[in-house]
Amino acid sequence: VSQEKLKSVKTNAMSPKITVELLRQLRQAMKNSKYITEPIQAYIIPSGDAHQSEYIAPCDCRREFICGFNGSAGTAIVTEQHAALWTDGRYFLQASQQMDNNWTLMKMGLKETPSQEDWLVSILPENSKVGVDPWIIAADQWKNMSKALSSAGHSLVAVQDNLIDTIWEDRPAPPSTKLITLGLKYTGLTWQDKVTALRGKMAERKISWFVVTALDEIAWLFNLRGSDIEYNPVFFAYAIIGISNIKLFVDSKRLLDPAVQEHLELDSPSKPELTIQCFPYESVYTELQAVCAALAPKEKMWICDKASCALTQVIPKSHRSAIPYTPLCLAKAVKNPTEIQAMKMAHIKDAVALCELFAWLEKEIPKGTVTEISVADKAEELRSQQRDFVGLSFPTISSVGPNGAIIHYRPLPETNRTLSLNEVYLIDSGAQYLDGTTDVTRTVHFGTPTDYEKECFTYVLKGHIAVSAAVFPNGTKGHLLDSFARAALWDSGLDYLHGTGHGVGCFLNVHEGPCGISYKTFADEPLEAGMIVSDEPGYYEDGSFGIRIENVVLVIPAKTKYNYRNRGSLTFEPLTLVPIQLKMINTDLLTQKEHDWVNDYHKKCRETIGAELKRQGRKESLDWLIRETQPIV
Amino acid sequence: VSQEKLKSVKTNAMSPKITVELLRQLRQAMKNSKYITEPIQAYIIPSGDAHQSEYIAPCDCRREFICGFNGSAGTAIVTEQHAALWTDGRYFLQASQQMDNNWTLMKMGLKETPSQEDWLVSILPENSKVGVDPWIIAADQWKNMSKALSSAGHSLVAVQDNLIDTIWEDRPAPPSTKLITLGLKYTGLTWQDKVTALRGKMAERKISWFVVTALDEIAWLFNLRGSDIEYNPVFFAYAIIGISNIKLFVDSKRLLDPAVQEHLELDSPSKPELTIQCFPYESVYTELQAVCAALAPKEKMWICDKASCALTQVIPKSHRSAIPYTPLCLAKAVKNPTEIQAMKMAHIKDAVALCELFAWLEKEIPKGTVTEISVADKAEELRSQQRDFVGLSFPTISSVGPNGAIIHYRPLPETNRTLSLNEVYLIDSGAQYLDGTTDVTRTVHFGTPTDYEKECFTYVLKGHIAVSAAVFPNGTKGHLLDSFARAALWDSGLDYLHGTGHGVGCFLNVHEGPCGISYKTFADEPLEAGMIVSDEPGYYEDGSFGIRIENVVLVIPAKTKYNYRNRGSLTFEPLTLVPIQLKMINTDLLTQKEHDWVNDYHKKCRETIGAELKRQGRKESLDWLIRETQPIV
Repeated sequence: VSQEKLKSVKTNAMSPKITVELLRQLRQAMKNSKYITEPIQAYIIPSGDAHQSEYIAPCDCRREFICGFNGSAGTAIVTEQHAALWTDGRYFLQASQQMDNNWTLMKMGLKETPSQEDWLVSILPENSKVGVDPWIIAADQWKNMSKALSSAGHSLVAVQDNLIDTIWEDRPAPPSTKLITLGLKYTGLTWQDKVTALRGKMAERKISWFVVTALDEIAWLFNLRGSDIEYNPVFFAYAIIGISNIKLFVDSKRLLDPAVQEHLELDSPSKPELTIQCFPYESVYTELQAVCAALAPKEKMWICDKASCALTQVIPKSHRSAIPYTPLCLAKAVKNPTEIQAMKMAHIKDAVALCELFAWLEKEIPKGTVTEISVADKAEELRSQQRDFVGLSFPTISSVGPNGAIIHYRPLPETNRTLSLNEVYLIDSGAQYLDGTTDVTRTVHFGTPTDYEKECFTYVLKGHIAVSAAVFPNGTKGHLLDSFARAALWDSGLDYLHGTGHGVGCFLNVHEGPCGISYKTFADEPLEAGMIVSDEPGYYEDGSFGIRIENVVLVIPAKTKYNYRNRGSLTFEPLTLVPIQLKMINTDLLTQKEHDWVNDYHKKCRETIGAELKRQGRKESLDWLIRETQPIV
Repeated sequence: VSQEKLKSVKTNAMSPKITVELLRQLRQAMKNSKYITEPIQAYIIPSGDAHQSEYIAPCDCRREFICGFNGSAGTAIVTEQHAALWTDGRYFLQASQQMDNNWTLMKMGLKETPSQEDWLVSILPENSKVGVDPWIIAADQWKNMSKALSSAGHSLVAVQDNLIDTIWEDRPAPPSTKLITLGLKYTGLTWQDKVTALRGKMAERKISWFVVTALDEIAWLFNLRGSDIEYNPVFFAYAIIGISNIKLFVDSKRLLDPAVQEHLELDSPSKPELTIQCFPYESVYTELQAVCAALAPKEKMWICDKASCALTQVIPKSHRSAIPYTPLCLAKAVKNPTEIQAMKMAHIKDAVALCELFAWLEKEIPKGTVTEISVADKAEELRSQQRDFVGLSFPTISSVGPNGAIIHYRPLPETNRTLSLNEVYLIDSGAQYLDGTTDVTRTVHFGTPTDYEKECFTYVLKGHIAVSAAVFPNGTKGHLLDSFARAALWDSGLDYLHGTGHGVGCFLNVHEGPCGISYKTFADEPLEAGMIVSDEPGYYEDGSFGIRIENVVLVIPAKTKYNYRNRGSLTFEPLTLVPIQLKMINTDLLTQKEHDWVNDYHKKCRETIGAELKRQGRKESLDWLIRETQPIV
């Protein structure tokens, strides 16, 4: 699943939310001296949480609360006279259906659509104040907005009380789920090892403190997982790491669990500098203030430039070193041998579930009772039979025929189609296991595909192979490989409008930085052996069908004939081992090298997944696997 | 020739310049109240001119004057105690040879090398003032430096008198060469058409004025050329274009030429809004002040963010709209049909000269008297025989054997090698004709190349073809094609450390923005039909040989089987038509498609250049061409 797709899968009811009364209350709050010293003329409601998470918990769905639109991307702005929502092309239809006529839809990417800044400047009275909750706006976004407003004579002000929360009567409580401790068997490194390595990097750059705000970085650092946010095994927390201090900010109830106490050595730390001081989640602000107050003149503190404006601004500028990617983000991206082994195991189990699913589908489809939703449910059921299954890694995209061309489709009762022998079926799904995270897309036909469907599928496959088999020098950034995935489509005048791949966490978020394969980014970090990304080109024919072939692949060293400047080379090894449907391939369009790749890949699927199917006694699926992995000639 | 190479070809004498006395004088000037109100503790000497030109005139070689280093890239900083020069990897050796021990070489790109900002902050006494000539520092560079210094308690100050000029006794006079007027036959559009189109773009964006500072933009806009800077047919000037005004700032002597007077309609303008007001070059500052003083409150003025700090700061922030690429830069990049036809003609003539050269070389080399320098001279002589030849478009790179591996090599008497039957020869050269600019690289062997040389050459050729034959959607940025040029090399563990292509002007600079093909950029503008770029992958084996195959190619619409979302597709048409030496190709490594490309290309060379060789009565070269363009089987 690609980032573009995932961001929008939570589509639900399509009748507009009635917002007259809510807007009236919000506009009152904007003038209420209980919350603000001076009235504000506009209030910005971004869609993130205090950790700038991609997925958010129900208590953080403030933008949805005020306007009704529940897509993943979008910013609402309410002024005394206007209410407007900015979102992108994926959501124009959905947003227009979910919002009532108190709201103006601002279609981002269209020439005539003003930016939030330009729009504010065009409608605000002179010398206006624009408010925003400094916790849910990232420091870099604050900076840009603030600059634009001040250059037009206005000002951006931080409103400490979130004004939406003041009018949201039945706002869900922030989640505080049970924590899971992960042992060395899964992580390869203790949290103490990780803290020590981090301090090494800090010392190298003469950094005294590092404020950790991203939830997956905290989970990875402490070898803990939670379930505060659906699909993402993270928990709400902050950490402040010093050269001899570890401050963890988390709901204290969660630390009562003896397993967690022992894991974190709360009672008996092995070394003084590895003692964790625990604080309530909410006290991060005051504690950071205290740390900053005690800084020596030249001391520097790291914070990600995507961290909240609130926390960032606590650190005086002279002490602040804002970085685009934190050392934890980089360390987490390069999987260690234990993590790689665990990810491989997770992918084997996931492939078993998918082989079961496809074998089952072949029998069931002719009955005419299998729907997009029932396949998604069946896939979840089959995955849940596998050892150490935790949950899905994102909502399953299960789509038949024309629904497959909606890149971010998620089946709903009102759109649900029945699988048949006449239409292409696309399923993009994945799971969280204790040992790893999966994400796989297969596109299949249960009858006879048309020549055009096969032709398009084959171009997509050629692109998939071009990336998967690419050899490239150490130090190459993933975005430089994106065009390889498109060349075969481009040659015929075709293309797809999403990136080719994203970083994948290890029993963590299915999307993670700092690497990926997308023409849209430039600031990605170079690929390194041990990184894990997805390889998922596609083709979408509006109103007709969608095709995507996605494997999760591991970056590994490549053996090459020469070795220019001793840089070394890299290539990919597929972790996903699920057959690619031969019936969909026009083999005449394959080169010998592509032909061999398909056969090698299927041999590996047969051997590795076959052994596990046998071990699990899943005879029918084994037969299916053997049939589907016959070499092409 | 690629940008990286060109920037450094002016290598001359290698004994260090004695700078004791000059530094003493400069440090005195830094305290002299004649030039500055308060003493400055450091003075920055950038390498550019007031137009941020890539190549500069002798009067602007101030950084070379103060430190002796004459490479194209480098910044000198002199403080009371220190003198340091920052330059990049291409120039470490050269700079260390050209500078005496009063100077510290700061090797950019090495981990241990501090940035100019960090270095200044580390050595300056508290509350220091750092001076720079605001005319030769770009606005965006000023901004970064100023920010870094202020955050450390120092300040960047504009020193109006250039302090180098105050101590440079025999500084050459600024050039003021004769202007060449270009008629419709070459330009396709009158300057009046161009001004009108520009005003259309200004009106679209509600812009009242546009300050033109780039020399090639001014030359293109007014259909004028000069020779103020070697290899670049430009002239020193500024222009300020309003919705009903045209202000041209240029040495008034140059306008006395009746041809120029008539061309610019100085005596009898056809329309009032197309009347050019001429001002002395130096009065741009005061005139811009006057224009700004008369601006209505909401009026906006365009200026490139690469323009000088001095001019940029004249425009009040509220009126300033700084843009990365100007509308002239964009308009100039998309060649009109007349320009395309003219460029084709220039490339035919250039190919004739090169066919002559190669035929001559075959005869002469066995005599053992042909050297890198003598080939370069011969190439210039042969080009100068062609109609409308003006000069070279850059210094010829003529290199034998190991010299070919020095990417920015230019033959000097002390490095000059003799061509032989045993070594690879690389020549990268080009010319300015009234009808166009050329830039071509061929790599050849006059004896028998080794298998390894052929293998590397063939990988480079495969990369060249992969770009040249690429089909890609309208709207694709050139940097997305860069990896196509490397895939064959990467597969074998090889690579080259420069970009793949740059924009090429039409009887203008051999390097121009805003398009190109390089992994290093992200902010390039999308390729469009009519743009012209180079396609020049290479491979360089240190101490042994260099290979590069470069054509100038035109972006053209491509016919494809399908047309996704009606976007249309593009591909390239080679304008350079010089045979690629078959002897260097290992044809076993070519795919059928590559094989066909070579034969098609050679067929076109034979037909087009053959006809011109025949017309010019160059029989021997015609025989050579026919032999060199035999189809491979």
